[in-house]
Amino acid sequence: MPTFVQILDFIGTFAFAISGIRLASAKRFDWFGAYVVGFVTAIGGGTIRDLLLDVTPGWMTDPIYLICTGLALLWVILFGKHLIHLNNTFFIFDSIGLALFTVVGVGKSIALGYPFWVAIIMGSITGAAGGVIRDVFINEIPLIFRKEIYAMACVVGGTFYWICYLLGMEAFVCQIVGGVTVFVTRILAVKYRICLPILSGNEEEQEM
Amino acid sequence: MPTFVQILDFIGTFAFAISGIRLASAKRFDWFGAYVVGFVTAIGGGTIRDLLLDVTPGWMTDPIYLICTGLALLWVILFGKHLIHLNNTFFIFDSIGLALFTVVGVGKSIALGYPFWVAIIMGSITGAAGGVIRDVFINEIPLIFRKEIYAMACVVGGTFYWICYLLGMEAFVCQIVGGVTVFVTRILAVKYRICLPILSGNEEEQEM
Amino acid sequence: MPTFVQILDFIGTFAFAISGIRLASAKRFDWFGAYVVGFVTAIGGGTIRDLLLDVTPGWMTDPIYLICTGLALLWVILFGKHLIHLNNTFFIFDSIGLALFTVVGVGKSIALGYPFWVAIIMGSITGAAGGVIRDVFINEIPLIFRKEIYAMACVVGGTFYWICYLLGMEAFVCQIVGGVTVFVTRILAVKYRICLPILSGNEEEQEM
Repeated sequence: MPTFVQILDFIGTFAFAISGIRLASAKRFDWFGAYVVGFVTAIGGGTIRDLLLDVTPGWMTDPIYLICTGLALLWVILFGKHLIHLNNTFFIFDSIGLALFTVVGVGKSIALGYPFWVAIIMGSITGAAGGVIRDVFINEIPLIFRKEIYAMACVVGGTFYWICYLLGMEAFVCQIVGGVTVFVTRILAVKYRICLPILSGNEEEQEM
Repeated sequence: MPTFVQILDFIGTFAFAISGIRLASAKRFDWFGAYVVGFVTAIGGGTIRDLLLDVTPGWMTDPIYLICTGLALLWVILFGKHLIHLNNTFFIFDSIGLALFTVVGVGKSIALGYPFWVAIIMGSITGAAGGVIRDVFINEIPLIFRKEIYAMACVVGGTFYWICYLLGMEAFVCQIVGGVTVFVTRILAVKYRICLPILSGNEEEQEM
Repeated sequence: MPTFVQILDFIGTFAFAISGIRLASAKRFDWFGAYVVGFVTAIGGGTIRDLLLDVTPGWMTDPIYLICTGLALLWVILFGKHLIHLNNTFFIFDSIGLALFTVVGVGKSIALGYPFWVAIIMGSITGAAGGVIRDVFINEIPLIFRKEIYAMACVVGGTFYWICYLLGMEAFVCQIVGGVTVFVTRILAVKYRICLPILSGNEEEQEM
């Protein structure tokens, strides 16, 4: 029997893979290319985190991520034209994935003895870096740098996780508080169109 | 005396470096930029594999890859205008490189005790990821996601390697079968213009 | 009390972060995106080096780089419109950063027992790779491949460092000679517009 966290992990992976495959399909990638972009979107953040923490990336020990991406590809091939109607559903799934991935990243870093600022960064990398690689592959400026509160939600959630940890709460309480914070921050930011200010210090492109 | 595999490795590195340097020259990179792109095309896939497997990248223990890329740059500088007539030759060299790099990646992963699906992915990364970094550097959508059977040939060859391994064949038999499969798959795919279907589930760009 | 090298390190990090944040602002990134690009510009080269050398990246053990990037962002938000008048100052700071980062990369590799060619490459990666990631994130062809002597200055400085080391000089003499060489090479190259030749072997884009 899969645990509750494993089910959430599967949902998050599926939603992230779908997001990669859909953007790849908009660029007319072939099935293989779409699969790779979907897979990298799903596991890219965790892989960068694990390289930095010097542990073996999770997808190299469990084929579930490969299978899950395969199911996501099948889903898009079969139901692609009807996915539009499910945008809200996928938005919820994607936010669940973001919350879960962040919590996993923060927890893993704390367990390895890293200080809080590293843990929060690792949580954000786990949640958001897969999307950055996806956008680099499809040759677009990464979305998270320009639009909406996305990675910021990971930072906020990671901070709440750490505060709970500091207050001596149980691991699962920290995880729930951290995850719910990411989820709620993301939902509220999109619902009320909360954005960070755009930097406009100097207009001309000026390289150093 | 270099072994047969070392000679193939040199040919593969040379062909991969040439491919990077030529694409860099089309973008008007300077000599240094072209050298770097050629070098990264040649060693990028193996480097990502070695980071994931947590071993020291091969080019950090043997300067042959640096020298080989230097020779490739010299070649393009001296004979650049006549390279067009050699396209078929380079296509064969490039396919040899792809086959060899895949086999090296699969073999290394199996030797380290990883399961077959990791080995096949590592073989494909070794063969194809250098070209992906090359295309990111020259600011193009990676070719392997859009055109032809390329990384798919690595997957097919890696699978044949693994089947041979499963049947208890000697290492060098697995390597030859795997490598020949990659090479033949690639040649046939280009000759008969075999492509994977393009994904076109939803037309509009829709980010999640 | 911070040491002299720590002060130089801070200046270099600040200058690199500013360069990332300014380019991000030209692309209308929000504050968070600009911060991330600035941070990655500052620590990206050292992080890739440390992943290749299999040691923990420096920014994961000391929060100074996060703080320094924060100050750089604050600086651009407050004084962005007046930064133009400081271009020469930032050019000097950036060159100091380049020199220092190169020396740190070369020294660290030699201390770990790597051969000279690895040390020179690691020095160049430390100095120049952060700018490459920055340019990939803002979806431009990396500057260092097209313009000016930049990473070449790292290679020249690293070579001088190694020659001094070979002559049996003290570590701090090697560092000063190496660093000054990077700095002077960069300044002279920009002042006298010294460029490497552009590769123009074949005009059409030709993929292999």
